[in-house]
Amino acid sequence: MNHDERAIRDVHATWIDAVNAGDLDRLLSLMTDDVIFLNPGESPLGRDRFPAKFSSAHQRLLLHCDSELEDVVVAGEVAYTRSRDALSLRSRGGGDATQLAGYRMTVYRKQADGRWLLARDAHTLTVTEA
Amino acid sequence: MNHDERAIRDVHATWIDAVNAGDLDRLLSLMTDDVIFLNPGESPLGRDRFPAKFSSAHQRLLLHCDSELEDVVVAGEVAYTRSRDALSLRSRGGGDATQLAGYRMTVYRKQADGRWLLARDAHTLTVTEA
Repeated sequence: MNHDERAIRDVHATWIDAVNAGDLDRLLSLMTDDVIFLNPGESPLGRDRFPAKFSSAHQRLLLHCDSELEDVVVAGEVAYTRSRDALSLRSRGGGDATQLAGYRMTVYRKQADGRWLLARDAHTLTVTEA
Repeated sequence: MNHDERAIRDVHATWIDAVNAGDLDRLLSLMTDDVIFLNPGESPLGRDRFPAKFSSAHQRLLLHCDSELEDVVVAGEVAYTRSRDALSLRSRGGGDATQLAGYRMTVYRKQADGRWLLARDAHTLTVTEA
């Protein structure tokens, strides 16, 4: 595994840890200014609307994501990955958890300082148990 | 618009025309050997299982896709795009059409001969009218 692939795997692991910890600042440090997230049934989400959406979800829900990288391709200053994700969402008010599962495709861009940042992300998670 | 972006826009338009025409051979000529498609609620689909899935859908359904490119980024031999798609599916046995809408993220790879081919594709289309 070369240096770039190792760096991208580290960003992926850090990203998932930050999602689970509700660490918005960390997430913002891992994405490009022009990042776009595609979520089923929603409009494309950019950096500007990300904080409100993420914070709102964490205020309402206990969430936990497990994500396993299945594919990492590095080509110059661009990389693209596929992960297999499982997401559990439980209302902070109680009740059963909703389980989602599916895949996520992410494009990373290498920065001038060598860091790899998320630039595009699309997921296909659907509810498997509600 | 540079030459590569124009080529990618042409591949996108040709792809959508071939989807609507049921032209499997054309589609196979536009994808890499290692292509992966991510569809909500399904396992990753490779080139090996693509023909049976596509042909089966066309045998059962009259389908029409409209797709508008909203974002084209070329970085060396890799490009990634976002399109806004609307898909209509109507059973060949009759009845109302099911309408889906959403977005698609595609990664293209430039080949040694200069052609751009689909390498990764994930869509977030959901049913808007059934």
